Amino acid sequence: MAKLHTSLCDRLGIRLPIIQAPMPSAATPELVAAVSHAGALGSFGSAYTQPEAMQREAEAVRARTHLPFNVNLFVSKPPGAVDAAAQRGALDAVAGYYRELRLPPPEPVRSPYAPDLDAQLRAIEEIRPAVFTFHLGDIPQERVRRIQALGVKVGGSANCIAEARNLESLGVDFIVAQGAEAGGHRGSYRRNPYDSMTGTLALVRMIVSNVKTPVVAAGGIMDGAGIAAVLALGAQAAWLGTAFVPCPESGAPRAHKEGVLNSKEDATLVTEKFSGKPARAIANRFIREMHERAAPQLVFPAQNVLTGKLRTAAAKAGIPDFVAMYAGQAAPLSRALPAAELVATLEAETLECLDRLAALRR
Amino acid sequence: MAKLHTSLCDRLGIRLPIIQAPMPSAATPELVAAVSHAGALGSFGSAYTQPEAMQREAEAVRARTHLPFNVNLFVSKPPGAVDAAAQRGALDAVAGYYRELRLPPPEPVRSPYAPDLDAQLRAIEEIRPAVFTFHLGDIPQERVRRIQALGVKVGGSANCIAEARNLESLGVDFIVAQGAEAGGHRGSYRRNPYDSMTGTLALVRMIVSNVKTPVVAAGGIMDGAGIAAVLALGAQAAWLGTAFVPCPESGAPRAHKEGVLNSKEDATLVTEKFSGKPARAIANRFIREMHERAAPQLVFPAQNVLTGKLRTAAAKAGIPDFVAMYAGQAAPLSRALPAAELVATLEAETLECLDRLAALRR
Repeated sequence: MAKLHTSLCDRLGIRLPIIQAPMPSAATPELVAAVSHAGALGSFGSAYTQPEAMQREAEAVRARTHLPFNVNLFVSKPPGAVDAAAQRGALDAVAGYYRELRLPPPEPVRSPYAPDLDAQLRAIEEIRPAVFTFHLGDIPQERVRRIQALGVKVGGSANCIAEARNLESLGVDFIVAQGAEAGGHRGSYRRNPYDSMTGTLALVRMIVSNVKTPVVAAGGIMDGAGIAAVLALGAQAAWLGTAFVPCPESGAPRAHKEGVLNSKEDATLVTEKFSGKPARAIANRFIREMHERAAPQLVFPAQNVLTGKLRTAAAKAGIPDFVAMYAGQAAPLSRALPAAELVATLEAETLECLDRLAALRR
Repeated sequence: MAKLHTSLCDRLGIRLPIIQAPMPSAATPELVAAVSHAGALGSFGSAYTQPEAMQREAEAVRARTHLPFNVNLFVSKPPGAVDAAAQRGALDAVAGYYRELRLPPPEPVRSPYAPDLDAQLRAIEEIRPAVFTFHLGDIPQERVRRIQALGVKVGGSANCIAEARNLESLGVDFIVAQGAEAGGHRGSYRRNPYDSMTGTLALVRMIVSNVKTPVVAAGGIMDGAGIAAVLALGAQAAWLGTAFVPCPESGAPRAHKEGVLNSKEDATLVTEKFSGKPARAIANRFIREMHERAAPQLVFPAQNVLTGKLRTAAAKAGIPDFVAMYAGQAAPLSRALPAAELVATLEAETLECLDRLAALRR
């Protein structure tokens, strides 16, 4: 069978220029291992994962495959203490939903709102995954170098040229250019996220034209045609999240999987209501009502803690109204396939697309 | 030299799968003729052009080349009369700018705000351009057929699958899928334009997957890599507007050309302040201040008449503050090249990109 290969594939030790995007909860060790075993790069979304659990998850993958995988962290600066008035407002805004799901009233969210980043970074240094990526910010150059010195390739994500250039100056191995179509959290860290809503096609081409570091394209890519398109733009790999949400190996709640599989066009929007930072998700009752009421929210990631019980209870009960159904704009192109089959399909489609393009040169 | 060809090229009688997007004022007969002569499809943006002028422009192109060209019209329903209070509010909102440019105070805008659409359509039937396209709406099926019966290929533009399906049901020859990156007016006509801000990569792939009619991709395409990318997505041609704005043959005001050539990333936004309908333009003082003040505006196209003197005077004086610098999100990739050279460059880049893609299959 024909091969599909970029120089970044060699650098990361993967067969295919396809990366399963890191997604907290959806990216189980089963999914990551299945994707990596199939020749793409599986990725953990460990933003909210404690170091010990990161270790266990890495071991679980390594028990299944010796192929490379990626661990992703959120590296935004932790917020200060949330004042009492802000807590009250945000708690009141969701109290009715707590009642509706028969949960005890929401309690004030206490710091720390998320695992300690430095402890997570030390876990990366111990786990030494083939690839480490970060989102929502940057890390100091010496840290990038220290991690690279352990044999780990490092990638960061950018929503604009300025952020990409900064990542290049830090010496990362690759840059994830996240277009406006992308599901999940906007990676913006130097500019207002709402000012950097550039479509994947435009953003990838602009970033590729402005940096020498290999670029990975993210946002709206769901099939081989999308992969071939971003390779045409000069990306060295495609980063697909939504496409993997419905996989049986994915840990996404059933409501999320069905939400993606049954989604119609224009179903997503960018909301801060689940976590406190803008992220693209399928609009549901929670998002719509919180937006309509202009309901207050806590800063990231405190809001994510506050909505956590709600999301968990709703997921358990199969109620999509309160599940964070993160998804990109091309979600209607999603398919319910086991991860290995999806990777094989993406590979075959990409090759087919390249053949189709070659035939245009008559 | 290698050829680059899709079946839509045959259908439209053009050598290359490249269409210069219609742009009122920028698309002069010189530009249209130069683009068509170079093997792409030149297009008039005749939205605001009277039938007689449409005739003259077509003759001017035909005196230069016998190759196909496209005439584009806006086909939105004309608004009713604008009431006195709305007029006062909108006039007051721009009166200061009129003073600043030493123009007499703005006068109430009177109907008709734009050329009569039926007269324009009759002009199309007389001119019989190789291609007729419409934007901002649709036209009845019998009109599509009547125009096609004259040997004219007909295309309409869509910002979502629903609009594309409707165009297919009308029997158009091709559908322009306009992604969120695109400069100029959003083509939405069945849904709220702000709900249909889907990136080009996602939108083109979704529309291609949902209709059988050939799709032309628009939005954020500035070079051969962008063209190859949309061909990968299954589009049969690429539609580039912003790339042609700086051409010497373009009638865009110098301020507009320089605005595009010197634009930085994230410089554009979608505004209704120039025409009354949402359109992507480079943010300037007029847009920023009108947005900040939440200044009232007239309905489309009455607002376009109201801002007309302002735009013209500013363009003449070389003041970018009041010029409608319509541009897409990838404007920073623009180049100042004569039209024929730009088309030749796009062709060479696309072929080079297809070669690069073929080499990935090692």
